[in-house]
Amino acid sequence: MSAIKKVLLVGATGTVGSAVAKRLAAVGHEVVRAGRRSGDVQVDIADDASVAALFAQVGPVDAIVATTGEVHFGPLAQMSAAQFNIGLQGKLLGQVRLALIGQAHLNDGGSITLTTGILTEEPIRDGVNATAVNGAIEGFVRAAATELPRGIRINAVSPTLLTESAAALGAYFPGFETVSSERVALAYERSVAGVQTGRVYRIG
Amino acid sequence: MSAIKKVLLVGATGTVGSAVAKRLAAVGHEVVRAGRRSGDVQVDIADDASVAALFAQVGPVDAIVATTGEVHFGPLAQMSAAQFNIGLQGKLLGQVRLALIGQAHLNDGGSITLTTGILTEEPIRDGVNATAVNGAIEGFVRAAATELPRGIRINAVSPTLLTESAAALGAYFPGFETVSSERVALAYERSVAGVQTGRVYRIG
Repeated sequence: MSAIKKVLLVGATGTVGSAVAKRLAAVGHEVVRAGRRSGDVQVDIADDASVAALFAQVGPVDAIVATTGEVHFGPLAQMSAAQFNIGLQGKLLGQVRLALIGQAHLNDGGSITLTTGILTEEPIRDGVNATAVNGAIEGFVRAAATELPRGIRINAVSPTLLTESAAALGAYFPGFETVSSERVALAYERSVAGVQTGRVYRIG
Repeated sequence: MSAIKKVLLVGATGTVGSAVAKRLAAVGHEVVRAGRRSGDVQVDIADDASVAALFAQVGPVDAIVATTGEVHFGPLAQMSAAQFNIGLQGKLLGQVRLALIGQAHLNDGGSITLTTGILTEEPIRDGVNATAVNGAIEGFVRAAATELPRGIRINAVSPTLLTESAAALGAYFPGFETVSSERVALAYERSVAGVQTGRVYRIG
């Protein structure tokens, strides 16, 4: 295993994803940027066939990083099961699908890094779907870490509100400290190039 | 609000559910037993219309208790996204659907009690779907507790391996202590008749 990692980054154009891409490239890793409509390769993480095609195209990698996935925001009192399912099929099953299909395409000693967020522990207004989805992803990471073979590791990064998002989203996060996407990106680097597994890196 | 609660118990024929029904009845509460094919009333928690019909039939209640829901057990290496989705649509969205639809049918000061399990924190072989699902339900409880109006509370009960299940499932839980369903049932009573919200009662 070389110190240079081939990293498949799904969600590379988001605020976190672009910071991760920049950091990993800056320290010498090879980053394959995947996105729904942008990036080096395209993928729909809601579709098994699309994810399988992504790995067929990109080939074996040393790291899979997911910084993407939709959740539903809205008040509990009006929430339907179908709305709650948006986050289950989007961010939750989307990230899990990348891990389930991707595990066979990881080199020995590879890693999977998923993304949750501070809402796991700190609920915000309208955020019940996001808190539940994050809790599930963190559970998935804890359990999957015990099963992955060949030295493959799995972690999650859980940032608080990004400084870059404070203008748009700050009203939902009263009194929350923010963190720069640059600092958050370091946690992904720790996960990709470090030694730990089953960890949630809480940043902020 | 009378000290006697009208409790809708979904999953009343399971090991936990029957112990909960017995305990709540023993201390004087009125228990309406719901099940897929058994009980006083029938419901399919995977179906919005069925859950709505359940509440139309049972009328306003003081407590909703869910002790039911399917998850997928199997090795991560062979798990498909469709298999992982069994637990998302089963135990997770099933229990959440009861809460989402049921919230409008709860009397002031009512409660919702969901069920997770020790796998949330302690993964076992083949249990990745269960750990993720439990993590999501506990997240839902944390967040929903901040939004529910009219003094309505929501909690989860998370038992370890039941003593009654040790013969059948003990091989999956090496070295785990067990807990009697009688003790677990007390936690449901605490949730139904107590004052806390957003709690996970970890029993065992």
